[in-house]
Amino acid sequence: MKVKSLASTPAVTAPPETPIREIAAIMVRRRIGLVVLTRSEELVGVISERDIVRAVAQDIDMAKPAETIATRHVVTIDAEADIKEAVALFRRHNIRHLVVVNKGQIYGVLSIRDLVREKELLAGLEEYATVQADALWIVGD
Amino acid sequence: MKVKSLASTPAVTAPPETPIREIAAIMVRRRIGLVVLTRSEELVGVISERDIVRAVAQDIDMAKPAETIATRHVVTIDAEADIKEAVALFRRHNIRHLVVVNKGQIYGVLSIRDLVREKELLAGLEEYATVQADALWIVGD
Repeated sequence: MKVKSLASTPAVTAPPETPIREIAAIMVRRRIGLVVLTRSEELVGVISERDIVRAVAQDIDMAKPAETIATRHVVTIDAEADIKEAVALFRRHNIRHLVVVNKGQIYGVLSIRDLVREKELLAGLEEYATVQADALWIVGD
Repeated sequence: MKVKSLASTPAVTAPPETPIREIAAIMVRRRIGLVVLTRSEELVGVISERDIVRAVAQDIDMAKPAETIATRHVVTIDAEADIKEAVALFRRHNIRHLVVVNKGQIYGVLSIRDLVREKELLAGLEEYATVQADALWIVGD
């Protein structure tokens, strides 16, 4: 399965000079955990929920431009890549979102939540918990 | 497998009058997504990362007491309950955290992330993606 078949598209983007507060409002309104900052369609950085919580902790003025707290080194993946490559990137970088690119342009965002929809994820976890319990039982036997 | 074997314990708690900004600092410092508000060891409410992002969007003063933005109706689960009950609650309420109680006292917090550690979750997702791909292939065949 390819990344492009599961990515949320188009990416929710905002100009780098957007106030942090407005980025938070976009996250709430769109029910997303990541906003992509772009300038003339070029990727400048990303802001996650966690980045906003960190800014609150550091008493940063929420009227400041988003780019002041953005993550600049964005992990991207090609829209044509296999989902397994995405899983490997989530794991290696310990992140929850990847920016998906297609022919050098921003295509969308892939989050762990997009990867499997909540219900399916939880059904999988339930199965996983059962498997784990069985495994523990075998080890303990 | 019981909830108590996977819950993070003890719960990270704070008094309801703690400033929102300090709650954000606790989340960053402890790398958690939920803080439990207690008064004399009684559960008053919870605050999630998302609650803080929403407060930023609404231009709420971060010096205000945490209880002003807390979620009051907290979903709890017994420490002795089976993991499957927790999975059912995550699904039914569309939440990421449960407060775990034991004999009427706060025992800890169970998050989807605690349920399966990142690596195991992602390994599961990888397997799941493969199963899904196979299923789609069968449907498409």
